[in-house]
Amino acid sequence: MNEEPVYDLAHLAHVELLTPKLDESRRFFVEVMGMTESGRQGDSVYLRGWDDYERHTLKLTAADKPGLGHYAFRASSPQALQRRVATVEKSGLGKGWSDGDIGHGPAYCFTDPDGHNIEIYYETEWYSPPEELRPALKNQAERFPARGANVRRIDHINLLAADVRANRQFMQEVLGCRLTEQIIFDDGSEKGAWVTVCNKSYDVAIAEDHYGAHGRLHHVTYALDSREEVLRTADICLEHNVFIETGPHKHAIQQTFFLYMYEPGGNRFEVANAGARLVLAPDWKPIVWSEAERKKGQAWGLQTIKSFHTRGTPLVEGE
Amino acid sequence: MNEEPVYDLAHLAHVELLTPKLDESRRFFVEVMGMTESGRQGDSVYLRGWDDYERHTLKLTAADKPGLGHYAFRASSPQALQRRVATVEKSGLGKGWSDGDIGHGPAYCFTDPDGHNIEIYYETEWYSPPEELRPALKNQAERFPARGANVRRIDHINLLAADVRANRQFMQEVLGCRLTEQIIFDDGSEKGAWVTVCNKSYDVAIAEDHYGAHGRLHHVTYALDSREEVLRTADICLEHNVFIETGPHKHAIQQTFFLYMYEPGGNRFEVANAGARLVLAPDWKPIVWSEAERKKGQAWGLQTIKSFHTRGTPLVEGE
Amino acid sequence: MNEEPVYDLAHLAHVELLTPKLDESRRFFVEVMGMTESGRQGDSVYLRGWDDYERHTLKLTAADKPGLGHYAFRASSPQALQRRVATVEKSGLGKGWSDGDIGHGPAYCFTDPDGHNIEIYYETEWYSPPEELRPALKNQAERFPARGANVRRIDHINLLAADVRANRQFMQEVLGCRLTEQIIFDDGSEKGAWVTVCNKSYDVAIAEDHYGAHGRLHHVTYALDSREEVLRTADICLEHNVFIETGPHKHAIQQTFFLYMYEPGGNRFEVANAGARLVLAPDWKPIVWSEAERKKGQAWGLQTIKSFHTRGTPLVEGE
Amino acid sequence: MNEEPVYDLAHLAHVELLTPKLDESRRFFVEVMGMTESGRQGDSVYLRGWDDYERHTLKLTAADKPGLGHYAFRASSPQALQRRVATVEKSGLGKGWSDGDIGHGPAYCFTDPDGHNIEIYYETEWYSPPEELRPALKNQAERFPARGANVRRIDHINLLAADVRANRQFMQEVLGCRLTEQIIFDDGSEKGAWVTVCNKSYDVAIAEDHYGAHGRLHHVTYALDSREEVLRTADICLEHNVFIETGPHKHAIQQTFFLYMYEPGGNRFEVANAGARLVLAPDWKPIVWSEAERKKGQAWGLQTIKSFHTRGTPLVEGE
Repeated sequence: MNEEPVYDLAHLAHVELLTPKLDESRRFFVEVMGMTESGRQGDSVYLRGWDDYERHTLKLTAADKPGLGHYAFRASSPQALQRRVATVEKSGLGKGWSDGDIGHGPAYCFTDPDGHNIEIYYETEWYSPPEELRPALKNQAERFPARGANVRRIDHINLLAADVRANRQFMQEVLGCRLTEQIIFDDGSEKGAWVTVCNKSYDVAIAEDHYGAHGRLHHVTYALDSREEVLRTADICLEHNVFIETGPHKHAIQQTFFLYMYEPGGNRFEVANAGARLVLAPDWKPIVWSEAERKKGQAWGLQTIKSFHTRGTPLVEGE
Repeated sequence: MNEEPVYDLAHLAHVELLTPKLDESRRFFVEVMGMTESGRQGDSVYLRGWDDYERHTLKLTAADKPGLGHYAFRASSPQALQRRVATVEKSGLGKGWSDGDIGHGPAYCFTDPDGHNIEIYYETEWYSPPEELRPALKNQAERFPARGANVRRIDHINLLAADVRANRQFMQEVLGCRLTEQIIFDDGSEKGAWVTVCNKSYDVAIAEDHYGAHGRLHHVTYALDSREEVLRTADICLEHNVFIETGPHKHAIQQTFFLYMYEPGGNRFEVANAGARLVLAPDWKPIVWSEAERKKGQAWGLQTIKSFHTRGTPLVEGE
Repeated sequence: MNEEPVYDLAHLAHVELLTPKLDESRRFFVEVMGMTESGRQGDSVYLRGWDDYERHTLKLTAADKPGLGHYAFRASSPQALQRRVATVEKSGLGKGWSDGDIGHGPAYCFTDPDGHNIEIYYETEWYSPPEELRPALKNQAERFPARGANVRRIDHINLLAADVRANRQFMQEVLGCRLTEQIIFDDGSEKGAWVTVCNKSYDVAIAEDHYGAHGRLHHVTYALDSREEVLRTADICLEHNVFIETGPHKHAIQQTFFLYMYEPGGNRFEVANAGARLVLAPDWKPIVWSEAERKKGQAWGLQTIKSFHTRGTPLVEGE
Repeated sequence: MNEEPVYDLAHLAHVELLTPKLDESRRFFVEVMGMTESGRQGDSVYLRGWDDYERHTLKLTAADKPGLGHYAFRASSPQALQRRVATVEKSGLGKGWSDGDIGHGPAYCFTDPDGHNIEIYYETEWYSPPEELRPALKNQAERFPARGANVRRIDHINLLAADVRANRQFMQEVLGCRLTEQIIFDDGSEKGAWVTVCNKSYDVAIAEDHYGAHGRLHHVTYALDSREEVLRTADICLEHNVFIETGPHKHAIQQTFFLYMYEPGGNRFEVANAGARLVLAPDWKPIVWSEAERKKGQAWGLQTIKSFHTRGTPLVEGE
């Protein structure tokens, strides 16, 4: 009899982005992307999409260089949290508990093998909108903003790692993520992996760091409701002089309809739509993309520009 | 410490519709809705949407009257299947094992308190398309048909029940479904309930049977990728003389963007899009709609026509 | 040899709406509909959609009651203006020249047989956006606002008239409009007419005034780029407590995808999308809808609510 | 007083494509693009989009090489036809009258300075669908096919010319087209021109032939209703192994949302959506794009691939 799938992590919860231009980054996410500021503390600003149920899903923290502060999963239950903490501690990558942050309770802190900071917690603060942001329909977290791109909710994070395989195995074996797609080259080397903890087809992606650096971020992604909204975001970026790196186009892998831009702090940011695509099969067989398939470019033939395959934050010397 | 959520059922797997006009029903689902025929046996035809990973998700069976044959969940694992069978048997509503059907292995058969036939199974046949239906992208189950409505995958089933509360409790307590929204009138009576087993905001809905009848079907729903595709389906129904009961419009409850029609056999069928809406919170607090809220009609003010609140299949006498 | 079609009027230019709540109306059009204020004078505020090339297309004027101030066409050339003025004068409905208004030069003023005020002019002020509203692409009149409904440009006006036939004949014979669709009941009475001066399938619609009143307005319409944007406008109206009278749905006549609401002053306002539909044939044969066809309701079967067929502004006594 | 604009040509009427693979081309346009075959004669097949009011808008003719047979305008009236014939004859490029073709009456034949064959006619055959293609709404030319890309109507043609200026002047001065956008490089050379005869922002585009060849075709374009439909066409092309040259993306010039592919005969074919964009101003001032602006690539930054700027049909030697 097969091993049972693990459901201890409920979903990707939030990402902390480091930015050397806190105020400009904040303005970009609020005015151009349509997010709501839901907290401020010290050098950090907390933001959310209108459909995020937790108080925040994006934390911007002032720093010398752009990059990833940390990212977090919410556990499925207090018991599930304990179970995952136990496996992480066993892995030797645990760092211990924090008291929590604005919006959530005690969090267990650790790193993946590549050095990205991760947290898991269960206790959270459900977002309670002020009167002027109260939605008309009570099954919605917050009023639809009708401002800028109107990003809906956090969708996934994409990390660079020097050793994709090691990081991918950690996500599966220690955190209980399920592998849905991956890139394996002819020499057997793993170039990318997409893992999920829920029915979305991925919550975390891992791509090989072109420079062999550690702990870098490729991008963070928020979801939109339709491909048309991704196109509209491109129109809006154009009006606001936001740098579009590539897209809109459709990835062959995961079929995500993407638009990549750089936020003012220098981090790559994506808005995406995957339509109604979900991974419902509990025994999904990972899709493996070969070197030859990968060379074909994106779904409709676009050759992604070089920077997309090399650039991460923080930038490495010479990048 | 809270009880842990149950993840034993992976997803709604398929629905068997009874139809007095098998051939016309089949033609409707294949030519107008864009489904693929993936099997035939005895008086039954098996159908699927292009993104369904299992061999079939809709089974049409010739019968005197329209209605529900049965519907099925796929379990998350063999162990999960055994656990659910045990709770069902304890409920006294179990009927025993069947050998399975085209496309899946042994299934445990039972009814809900209202008498709808349900099955759970784990072993399944992944769809393997013939050459001419092979998709260009290998992470897709079948070639996009570009024919009719192009329904993507099974989404949910809506059942009528004389006693909504009893059925709802069964779904939660015996099957481990999670309640996401419900209607409770001022006198405390339950009029509707929406439950899920995955991250979709519902897999099964239960509405009060206006006539107090038992075991009736309200509708089956397939998902589309965008609201525009739902509108296009209405255009296509118009061209094919398909009866549109109501819509396209947006439900306040669950915010589903809907289009309801009657398939030739007389069963109500829906195509719907809920955008990127998912229930990710493991501790989602059910949204309760009151009698007054319910009277407001649909999200944008449409007063749904009476038949939507009364008609089920099979029809009751005089209906 | 056929008579040649007339191209003296270039397009519907602007509409003046009377409103008893000037400030609220202005706020509605700017904040909810996404228009830009481009002028103010006396009791009037001038507004525009982001793709309107003239300085304004909507003029709001404070008044005791809602209703139509006037509406205007831009002529195709100075010569064309003179030709139309001559035919109007011959009709006996001319009122003489005005000096113009903010945004345009001398206008010839007249009424249609039902008493609606109309103006024609040629000299106009092309909109010149301030720095912060300058578009990224120079073939666009103004920056895309990314605020509220983002209405694109004025599309058409719909007038009530006691005698549809007389008004329709005036539009065709005196102004040179082309009739594209109309409703004629079994007794020969005309109930509605849609006329155009360009390739849009209509610029002006005339519907029978249920109360036999004169000079009333049914609605003004702005165009959006897609049906999805009309749906999104409904979402936004819901959040802003804007009264939705009917829609979104698709008219059988002209196939317009519509959403009707009441602006705070009480006038009916529509956002609509007709897709890529254009009337390109110079000898288009008017589509005539019969009484029976009209009774079928809208394209997908919606029975439009009664107020849509009776209400105009100003309201008649007892309405 | 300004010269009056000319409205003698009503619209682009049809294009004749030469193809060395008649049967494959026909299959592509019918099965993948969703067109209807509406005639056959000799070595030619006649096709139409579901919203084209004339019997055909695309004529495929078997030939050794791909390329343009001819294209045609419909005149606004018999008188307008005579006027344009007179100006063409005066230009010295006239070839005389043909008896017409399937679907239209006598046509005056001529070439532009670059040598492309053009025809103008007035008498036409309105499409009369057979019973099974009759639309549900009588203001529609033909039933919506719900097959493949469902192209709606012919939109524009793009020609290569050795001398853009000469060809552009001919279109304006001899045919009465209106110039809406153009590319002029720093040395004063004209690289592209977009002209219209109606409210669409262009009916004919002229681009400099990279090889200095004559009479070549860049592409023919059909309109879709939304940008989403252009994306869907890309999905469908992928499934049918159709070569996508570039797109979907948005042109800066004219803001067309484009997808370019090669039909089996080798001609470039485009599906496009420009939203609700129309040129309504009778005195539209041409938008002039400079060399520097042109270098920026498409609207959202895509650098169009080289073949798009060089390849035409028939291919030149070495291409």
